[in-house]
Amino acid sequence: MHTGTHYKISEFLLWTRRDIYVLILLSAIPTILFQVFDLKWIAIPWVPVALVGTAAAFIVGFKNTQTYNRLWEARQIWGAIVNTSRTWGIMSKDFVHADKSEIQQLIYRHCAWLTALRFQLRKPQSWENTNKAHFKEYRSYFSIPEWEGKLEEELLKYLSAEEHTYVLSKKNRATQLISLQSKHLKSLKSEGKIDPFEYVEMERQLSFLYDHQGKAERIKNFPYPRQFASINLFFVWLLVLMLPFGMLNEFQKLGEIFVWLTIPFSVIVSWVFTSMEKVGEATENPFEGGANDIPMAALSRTIEIDLRDMLDESNLPEPVTPVNSILM
Amino acid sequence: MHTGTHYKISEFLLWTRRDIYVLILLSAIPTILFQVFDLKWIAIPWVPVALVGTAAAFIVGFKNTQTYNRLWEARQIWGAIVNTSRTWGIMSKDFVHADKSEIQQLIYRHCAWLTALRFQLRKPQSWENTNKAHFKEYRSYFSIPEWEGKLEEELLKYLSAEEHTYVLSKKNRATQLISLQSKHLKSLKSEGKIDPFEYVEMERQLSFLYDHQGKAERIKNFPYPRQFASINLFFVWLLVLMLPFGMLNEFQKLGEIFVWLTIPFSVIVSWVFTSMEKVGEATENPFEGGANDIPMAALSRTIEIDLRDMLDESNLPEPVTPVNSILM
Amino acid sequence: MHTGTHYKISEFLLWTRRDIYVLILLSAIPTILFQVFDLKWIAIPWVPVALVGTAAAFIVGFKNTQTYNRLWEARQIWGAIVNTSRTWGIMSKDFVHADKSEIQQLIYRHCAWLTALRFQLRKPQSWENTNKAHFKEYRSYFSIPEWEGKLEEELLKYLSAEEHTYVLSKKNRATQLISLQSKHLKSLKSEGKIDPFEYVEMERQLSFLYDHQGKAERIKNFPYPRQFASINLFFVWLLVLMLPFGMLNEFQKLGEIFVWLTIPFSVIVSWVFTSMEKVGEATENPFEGGANDIPMAALSRTIEIDLRDMLDESNLPEPVTPVNSILM
Amino acid sequence: MHTGTHYKISEFLLWTRRDIYVLILLSAIPTILFQVFDLKWIAIPWVPVALVGTAAAFIVGFKNTQTYNRLWEARQIWGAIVNTSRTWGIMSKDFVHADKSEIQQLIYRHCAWLTALRFQLRKPQSWENTNKAHFKEYRSYFSIPEWEGKLEEELLKYLSAEEHTYVLSKKNRATQLISLQSKHLKSLKSEGKIDPFEYVEMERQLSFLYDHQGKAERIKNFPYPRQFASINLFFVWLLVLMLPFGMLNEFQKLGEIFVWLTIPFSVIVSWVFTSMEKVGEATENPFEGGANDIPMAALSRTIEIDLRDMLDESNLPEPVTPVNSILM
Amino acid sequence: MHTGTHYKISEFLLWTRRDIYVLILLSAIPTILFQVFDLKWIAIPWVPVALVGTAAAFIVGFKNTQTYNRLWEARQIWGAIVNTSRTWGIMSKDFVHADKSEIQQLIYRHCAWLTALRFQLRKPQSWENTNKAHFKEYRSYFSIPEWEGKLEEELLKYLSAEEHTYVLSKKNRATQLISLQSKHLKSLKSEGKIDPFEYVEMERQLSFLYDHQGKAERIKNFPYPRQFASINLFFVWLLVLMLPFGMLNEFQKLGEIFVWLTIPFSVIVSWVFTSMEKVGEATENPFEGGANDIPMAALSRTIEIDLRDMLDESNLPEPVTPVNSILM
Repeated sequence: MHTGTHYKISEFLLWTRRDIYVLILLSAIPTILFQVFDLKWIAIPWVPVALVGTAAAFIVGFKNTQTYNRLWEARQIWGAIVNTSRTWGIMSKDFVHADKSEIQQLIYRHCAWLTALRFQLRKPQSWENTNKAHFKEYRSYFSIPEWEGKLEEELLKYLSAEEHTYVLSKKNRATQLISLQSKHLKSLKSEGKIDPFEYVEMERQLSFLYDHQGKAERIKNFPYPRQFASINLFFVWLLVLMLPFGMLNEFQKLGEIFVWLTIPFSVIVSWVFTSMEKVGEATENPFEGGANDIPMAALSRTIEIDLRDMLDESNLPEPVTPVNSILM
Repeated sequence: MHTGTHYKISEFLLWTRRDIYVLILLSAIPTILFQVFDLKWIAIPWVPVALVGTAAAFIVGFKNTQTYNRLWEARQIWGAIVNTSRTWGIMSKDFVHADKSEIQQLIYRHCAWLTALRFQLRKPQSWENTNKAHFKEYRSYFSIPEWEGKLEEELLKYLSAEEHTYVLSKKNRATQLISLQSKHLKSLKSEGKIDPFEYVEMERQLSFLYDHQGKAERIKNFPYPRQFASINLFFVWLLVLMLPFGMLNEFQKLGEIFVWLTIPFSVIVSWVFTSMEKVGEATENPFEGGANDIPMAALSRTIEIDLRDMLDESNLPEPVTPVNSILM
Repeated sequence: MHTGTHYKISEFLLWTRRDIYVLILLSAIPTILFQVFDLKWIAIPWVPVALVGTAAAFIVGFKNTQTYNRLWEARQIWGAIVNTSRTWGIMSKDFVHADKSEIQQLIYRHCAWLTALRFQLRKPQSWENTNKAHFKEYRSYFSIPEWEGKLEEELLKYLSAEEHTYVLSKKNRATQLISLQSKHLKSLKSEGKIDPFEYVEMERQLSFLYDHQGKAERIKNFPYPRQFASINLFFVWLLVLMLPFGMLNEFQKLGEIFVWLTIPFSVIVSWVFTSMEKVGEATENPFEGGANDIPMAALSRTIEIDLRDMLDESNLPEPVTPVNSILM
Repeated sequence: MHTGTHYKISEFLLWTRRDIYVLILLSAIPTILFQVFDLKWIAIPWVPVALVGTAAAFIVGFKNTQTYNRLWEARQIWGAIVNTSRTWGIMSKDFVHADKSEIQQLIYRHCAWLTALRFQLRKPQSWENTNKAHFKEYRSYFSIPEWEGKLEEELLKYLSAEEHTYVLSKKNRATQLISLQSKHLKSLKSEGKIDPFEYVEMERQLSFLYDHQGKAERIKNFPYPRQFASINLFFVWLLVLMLPFGMLNEFQKLGEIFVWLTIPFSVIVSWVFTSMEKVGEATENPFEGGANDIPMAALSRTIEIDLRDMLDESNLPEPVTPVNSILM
Repeated sequence: MHTGTHYKISEFLLWTRRDIYVLILLSAIPTILFQVFDLKWIAIPWVPVALVGTAAAFIVGFKNTQTYNRLWEARQIWGAIVNTSRTWGIMSKDFVHADKSEIQQLIYRHCAWLTALRFQLRKPQSWENTNKAHFKEYRSYFSIPEWEGKLEEELLKYLSAEEHTYVLSKKNRATQLISLQSKHLKSLKSEGKIDPFEYVEMERQLSFLYDHQGKAERIKNFPYPRQFASINLFFVWLLVLMLPFGMLNEFQKLGEIFVWLTIPFSVIVSWVFTSMEKVGEATENPFEGGANDIPMAALSRTIEIDLRDMLDESNLPEPVTPVNSILM
């Protein structure tokens, strides 16, 4: 997540420079053919360009809306994780009649679940942008805790040795951590350390956590539908291809020398469309490890601080802070 | 579900080639009449074409939004099935005080429900695209588990012989499988193997499963309203019909020879609109067995793995993987 | 609900033919005045027509979105009725410790509620299209169970004589049928045939049914706001009136003889807009008895089959099937 | 709420006639200056007008969407009030083991709450249209029960003298009426007239009623944001101001005499935009006492009839009916 | 929150005057170069400007929709806080069997939570507009209670000395105040002053309060995504830069002298777009202390009045009223 007022225009131009090179080429070639090689017949009227432009605007606008919705839903899910976590905190503290260490166990295992979940959500998918040049380049500005750290080590902070081994042997660790919480609750109930109502209410909290986890996994595992991503890409580049041919005549009307202006202006207009497409692309996978991601590490830390503060612990960790305006 | 970065343009052109043939014909005929047979009076001004174009853009944009919503809701429903299934898992395991085989029965019957549901959702409907040529052709790239396998056999894995016979004798098998779960819970309660609160809470989970099933059936049984689908189709093809007539004059302004460019450019612009319409069509029925469908088999497998992993079973099945980038 | 792939273009033209007659008249008159009576001054520039066209496109697009939402919400409500009905089924069967006939009574009274509700929702409202010529004409293709049958007779199938008389004496029969269910539950509880938790849980299901009923009544009793419907109508017909006047000059630029083309093209463009408006109109009241209605009779039948199948009854009714592709 | 098929065009023109006068003036002045005083330099090209027109269309379309949403949410809230009221009815009747008069008290106090709420929601706000000339004028067609009647008298029908005095001494009467219901429930519980589960369930219904009340108050107390309302107003009138200047040249191209057509056509196009703005304005405050308001009195009466019919009372009031097609 | 009918146009022009100065400069320079220095080649055709204009309109419209949604959701959250607070009121009063002072403590601690929450939500964020000149200037018209007052003092009104010290020592005070409520409930339960069901129900209310708090914090801590904010800014200013160059030719067509009209009209059109952008900016952070903020102090006061009125306290505070039409 970027925490400044906006990206700098220089950053943005740098980030889109590869596209700009291509766009310059795509508009220079027809202009040179038209003007230098005198192939006047390659110019086309503006009318078909305008219609394709309208269709492209619709489809790009649609993509931006839907990728924004994906990002925003991802943030809502993590917001809901914060809320249920706090409720889990007060219920662990006040519903369970046990010594502090046992309550602490419920809280710490919850932090283990948060950790497992965010590591799982950062695993690369085949449709994500992780391997694209501009993506890798920008990644040098910030670091991704889930790629720098190791799940095995992180979990050690929160789990007993026995549970640590057990959890790592499982397929979906987050799912089985909740299952362990449920098992713990069961034993608390059979020992009479929690009353019947409260027991069911806490189990219900676990089902809410499953809801949040499953929703995050849904966004992770189901991309912005590729059929829509595909026509978006095709139509934008079709427009970009047609633009210089359509502009040639328009500039020629102003005079012979103006024809050369086709190059900068066709690049500018094309850049507007390819940049919209690129911003959509950089938003559609909110857990891929990009600069616009949900700051899962920071949110998990916030939860850990709040829950341990609830237990009046003293050695609270510091909040995660942005690096180069990027909070992860 | 397509799991790549996007469809290849070659795949896409192949997939829409039948439309392209028609579009070439539709733009060649008026151009030839105009240029070869010198029927100059068939050209029309651009103005009515532009207005129909705007209306078509609106109506196609609207369809894309709504079919996207249908797909996304279908995915949300299956996501919710994942979540409730996991909750069903921990509750079966920790709420029920019985030996492992009885708990296993609750889990396996749940897998039977998943199986019955996805088979039911794949039955063809009168408005689906199953019989269209481009649909059948593309189906050779992947296989649909619910059409290759048989429900009778699949259910054998999860049900006792008695229940197997009973369920197959019923109209809506998924519905009656939940009813069997409810019957089982009742007997568990009367045997004192589950406490009153927990009993009602588990019954409530069954009602959630009915909600998810009913929502999926709603999308299956209620198409994108045919009145909207109809005007969408009519207006796009009306535009496509009018386009070459409107372009003739625009190209003639550039010179006599340019008139022939009407053919390629009218095809390009028309293709943009018919392709949007086609992508909408290929998205609107998310359970019809197409490449953009909800991957129900893969999701059901994930659930089965998670639930049996919860019971610490060792012979877990493998996850379903994409074939030619298509996950089903 | 139409269950085909789309309406036939012939059906659609037939359905909108009255509009087409008017449109021909509206475009012929100015053209004749312009060409035959040589009133050249009645032509106007295209610019104001284009602006009104944009505004009309916005307002028609808005109406289509909202009427679609009304239809879709209506379908969601009936989907929710299906879901809660199934839950009612398993709860009646497994929560109530009584002989089968008493459980059957809970199920049958529920079917009575479904019947009363759908009859109530089909009563004509002052803003519905029931009396329009094209609406009446199309109604000959299919039949509306709630208008062919009589509520009094239908209810006899499901209610005891005493309750039958009682319910028919009431204002809102559906509401009072739920009230009877609640009364029955109360007596079951006082006879010890249902446990306290389960009792409250079933009462909660009744409150969900009230929610569904109330939501359906909201859509029935609160039309698409008439202020929006009015400007929609005014702006579309204002555009239709202006279109031929604006096209006269555009066609005259091509040559004197082309002016006569104003008639067909002004009709075509106008028809696009009036058809969008008409499709909105035919969608906005999803319970009015039109071809695009929610298939309430079919859905109620599905529920009846499922619930009685749950009780292992043998004489199950057949599902309702479409007549001329229309399912009601 | 208007209950006809649409407003009559004559009604609509009458309602917007003050705007029309201004529009005529605004388009006549530049035309006269241009034609009579020969100030040819005041005409401007169409291009800037078209861009402002596009922006205005966007912003007006946005406002219409949001005001529609406000109206529709207001109706949903009142629909939810109907639903919870019916649930309150069956629970009062079947959960409470007391004589009929005490149950009646729970129902009648609920009607008092409905009354207090709708009177509160009709109190004028500083941003509402209550004092505008066209608003006052139209109000003569119908009457607003909450402005004709007195809360003090209406409440007498439903409350004991003691509670009547108590409630009127309070700041927010609706809030404190629910508080009285809660107090009554508490005393029922301490007298053993209601069981523990049922008690909490009924208290939960009160919390739902607070939700509905609070949501209605939110729409009442938080206007469509004034920053958006402001730019909407500014941009529409900026467009209206620019329109005649932009049209002058367009009509002059057709001939000198055509310039006078600028006046009617600039008025027509402007009227389309100001009418959209006005319909938005007349929709944005759904409780202000206008013709498009939520029919709160009619809905409250429906609830009263249903609840008293549940108690088998015989002297039920008549439903509220529309006056001049306006239902309040 | 602005409580008038709309901002005055003079206020609005004053507020945007810095932009207007820049716009005048940006349109004067090219016009002077073109006309005075006779650099005729700097004029460009309208076509690329129109395409960039369309894209900018889409992206600005999108931003306005999303910032409106942020504001409206923020208001819904605070509405939900009102509703849950009232429910907390009746439950504290009627579920707890203790003397009045103890019930009062539950209510007053709730007011402390409201206070802590609104102070937290007003802390400046790095992406907010707090330091912009036009923002600071406008702030002189009204005052922000959370910036004028001190949390330490405000909390003294509602908390015991001991809890006051405890809460101020915590990281997230609002979170820990709910935790104190939960602790209090636990002790009430162990003293037998609250029944088991009611206890869990009240704890559930605390979890709802955590939901509301977390949702408000989500909007506070997660800005309108900066990648979207950035392209919005870039495209609007790109359009503004291109506009005068594109208009030069359009005005020259009318005559040499008309060229100077490029300056005012390019400023007007540009101002429409930058003003839309600015209104979006002034809406996107609904807790930043601007004139369009959620009136948190006023809403908190309303809650305090309602809850203390419920306890029949007599010294109720006055409602917060708008200052210069701004309610905070």
